[in-house]
Amino acid sequence: MLHTISILVENEFGVLARVAGLFSGRGFNIKSLTVAETLDPTVSRITLETIGDDQIVEQITKQLNKLVCVIKVIDFQDATHVDREMALIKVAVDERTRGEVLNIVDIFRAKVIDVSPRSYIIEVTGDEEKLNAILNLLKPLGIKEIVRTGKVAMHRGVQILSSSALGEAVELKRKSPQKEKAA
Amino acid sequence: MLHTISILVENEFGVLARVAGLFSGRGFNIKSLTVAETLDPTVSRITLETIGDDQIVEQITKQLNKLVCVIKVIDFQDATHVDREMALIKVAVDERTRGEVLNIVDIFRAKVIDVSPRSYIIEVTGDEEKLNAILNLLKPLGIKEIVRTGKVAMHRGVQILSSSALGEAVELKRKSPQKEKAA
Repeated sequence: MLHTISILVENEFGVLARVAGLFSGRGFNIKSLTVAETLDPTVSRITLETIGDDQIVEQITKQLNKLVCVIKVIDFQDATHVDREMALIKVAVDERTRGEVLNIVDIFRAKVIDVSPRSYIIEVTGDEEKLNAILNLLKPLGIKEIVRTGKVAMHRGVQILSSSALGEAVELKRKSPQKEKAA
Repeated sequence: MLHTISILVENEFGVLARVAGLFSGRGFNIKSLTVAETLDPTVSRITLETIGDDQIVEQITKQLNKLVCVIKVIDFQDATHVDREMALIKVAVDERTRGEVLNIVDIFRAKVIDVSPRSYIIEVTGDEEKLNAILNLLKPLGIKEIVRTGKVAMHRGVQILSSSALGEAVELKRKSPQKEKAA
């Protein structure tokens, strides 16, 4: 089962190595991972995708919660959420294919962010299905290079993942399993 | 100095922990990092941002090159490139602020990807400056939560970072310092 997990961590060096090590130590592959600062520069937010048995993933999230540097962990599996990723795709173009590539860009509401006589770089965002769809359409035209960010995710509506007092208030109401650790 | 580094790695478990450990072992903080599969599912691409002395970053990239799981490393510092990140921003809205938030979304060519009576989730892409600008405009209206992907980067024009034969051909022409390792 694919799990999308968000982790709020103290922004210290070594945190990422520790979190990634917890997964690899259990033989779990991390399919994708993103980490960047939140509005509070002392706190970073990791989003990762992993595939594995539900029980073992639960064990790993419990172990994550025990790390001093971890503020909060959530597995989005049963939560109503949105997830998105971004890809940059470099496509070879010539007189013959330029129009077709631009049509695809339009249909997917993507953007051309770099133009050279022989190539475009396309920026596209969406869920995994959308990204795979545009990649499949562009492949026969000649994809030279791609880079994907990996997934980021967020609860729909007002519920938030936060270390702040406001976040707690919302979390407590929903009786999140993470509330004790985070309180 | 801020460095944006891309690393092509074998898609094996433990690779991310090893790469992250190389930075933390040197006392280097990773400001942001993304990792996801490329078109070849056996190869993943890591993009990371780190701040540090140029010489030490060069040492680290040399050490990265020595790891068996690492296929190729590039520091974009002196290369003509584009970089982008994506953020999801949850903003509190009410009758009074809804219009203002939607104006900002329009100006930044962002998208509203979730609507509830009291909140929007906004998806926005751009360079760091653009993302900071929209965050600064939305802050007084009430940002509840953000998640950023961290940067992804790509050479402008036809040059590519690739483990394939085609990639090599382009790289060799440019006499990239990575060519020997990758060949």
